[in-house]
Amino acid sequence: MTESYLLGIDVGGTSIKMAIFSNDGDLMEKWSIATNKEKDGEYILEDISVSVKEKWQEMDLQANQFIGAGVGVPGFVDIEHGTIDFAVNIGWRDYPISSILSQHLGLPVVVDNDANLAAAGEYWRGAGVDAEDLILLTLGTGVGGGIIVKGDILHGVAGMAGEIGHVTMIPEAGSPCNCGKSGCLETVASATGMVRMARETIEHNTNSRLYQIWQENGEITTKDIFACAENNDTEAVTIINNAMYYLGLATANIANVLNPEKIVIGGGVSGAGEDLLRPLRFYYDTYALPKVKEHSTFAVAELGNDAGVAGAAWAAKTKAK
Amino acid sequence: MTESYLLGIDVGGTSIKMAIFSNDGDLMEKWSIATNKEKDGEYILEDISVSVKEKWQEMDLQANQFIGAGVGVPGFVDIEHGTIDFAVNIGWRDYPISSILSQHLGLPVVVDNDANLAAAGEYWRGAGVDAEDLILLTLGTGVGGGIIVKGDILHGVAGMAGEIGHVTMIPEAGSPCNCGKSGCLETVASATGMVRMARETIEHNTNSRLYQIWQENGEITTKDIFACAENNDTEAVTIINNAMYYLGLATANIANVLNPEKIVIGGGVSGAGEDLLRPLRFYYDTYALPKVKEHSTFAVAELGNDAGVAGAAWAAKTKAK
Repeated sequence: MTESYLLGIDVGGTSIKMAIFSNDGDLMEKWSIATNKEKDGEYILEDISVSVKEKWQEMDLQANQFIGAGVGVPGFVDIEHGTIDFAVNIGWRDYPISSILSQHLGLPVVVDNDANLAAAGEYWRGAGVDAEDLILLTLGTGVGGGIIVKGDILHGVAGMAGEIGHVTMIPEAGSPCNCGKSGCLETVASATGMVRMARETIEHNTNSRLYQIWQENGEITTKDIFACAENNDTEAVTIINNAMYYLGLATANIANVLNPEKIVIGGGVSGAGEDLLRPLRFYYDTYALPKVKEHSTFAVAELGNDAGVAGAAWAAKTKAK
Repeated sequence: MTESYLLGIDVGGTSIKMAIFSNDGDLMEKWSIATNKEKDGEYILEDISVSVKEKWQEMDLQANQFIGAGVGVPGFVDIEHGTIDFAVNIGWRDYPISSILSQHLGLPVVVDNDANLAAAGEYWRGAGVDAEDLILLTLGTGVGGGIIVKGDILHGVAGMAGEIGHVTMIPEAGSPCNCGKSGCLETVASATGMVRMARETIEHNTNSRLYQIWQENGEITTKDIFACAENNDTEAVTIINNAMYYLGLATANIANVLNPEKIVIGGGVSGAGEDLLRPLRFYYDTYALPKVKEHSTFAVAELGNDAGVAGAAWAAKTKAK
């Protein structure tokens, strides 16, 4: 029997997503389990293999029908050795995922950073199909990034490439960032950054609609900000405009360096669609070189939460040996 | 007889540099001819082939001993077809260099942008040997850039990748740039940019040493600025510091995206060596992510004007077919 299936695994801080794809990229099955973070995540790989084997039995599949498995992890990955240097949300440190999981499953296992694999997923089966040079930006609690160059993931010398969220946009007196620096793109263009800007706004302006929402709900979300902006609320429009100014400038600068064909925007905030893309494109067009601009288009990510497992399956397909 | 030589050609606005390398990268011979820009450069390729054939005769070599030729051109290159879209300093537009020169020489000919090939040259035989992920920044009248990723030139979708000089560093009210935008890195970190800053300084400060130099010589050069800074001249130190602030910030931001092993500084200004690298490293270290910083080192370019022909020979070696 020819090997014809791919296993994609996306390890997150609260759940582990898994999926089986055909070699052509059709999603056959997907499911998820909770992430057991006890004892620095030492039960996770066994949990995964038990769950995968149950699924195989259920679907009447066997290991020898699989080309391999790909695993995405939020953290620093030693790609060459299939080892996690450090995954703060999971607890793994110097953890040889590839060899352990490979033994459990009887399959070759490829490991990469989850943001890189999400970019590969959108390139393989999502908004970036056939765009061999692609940037994925995920706007959520942070700003994540993954870069595809000539149809492959860009890793750099230490697997750190694609850290677009930590490009410095406010060099002096910017807000502190989780990475230890300050003024990073993530501090102004993430959901967290936009909500922080909203809070700063209502401190000085208790008449604003955003202040009312905060009083009613005890919080402000990016959905609130986009909803207010749809009603032409000045403060909300200004917040989105500020965030997209920084994102557009950063994206244009990166595009002047990488000359991508497609820039895919994913993550929770990307649900705002054109309300986000319109100001983003405006600032991008202001700062990108004409020929860079001409050859690039923006798109909203299509795979949502499945991008990670799709990219993991792609990694299995293209890199498992 | 085995094919064992490589021909490297670097077409510039005033001269065309040529060199013969062994397949291992030893420089056997180099020479140059003047660039004849008459009739939009239509004599250039014939001039090159006449000169190459003379050299071959002189050295008792023949076409069939060569693997191929590489040609670097300052302009926009259609890599795939070996065509120049537009080389403003030469006069070529939609010009099929590869096929014409290949006919003249009886060799496969590979064409690329000159800055890209300079980066490849430093990677192959210069300051970046074995650094598979490398950035070359050339500081001269402009700021040029070339990027090596996984041991190959990064081109992007339209051959525009590496335009690091046109990353926007001053988004509001920056100086106009040759590219049509304003506030580009090139406007503040090139020789031209530093001299402009010196002129702005002496407008307000006729007591400065730089003002005296301008009065004596009718001009100010970057050499003057670095010489004054060596004598602790406040204005000169501030100019260099400003330029390196922008260069360090831009380089750190690009490094957060590319995670390079080596950042090579070339071009005329790089002659300042440590006087330039010291402030550059300071700002780079401020804005680069810790793990990106740890894995990267700065170096001054080693090949000088030979980087272009070396990279062209490398392109012939790795891409001629």
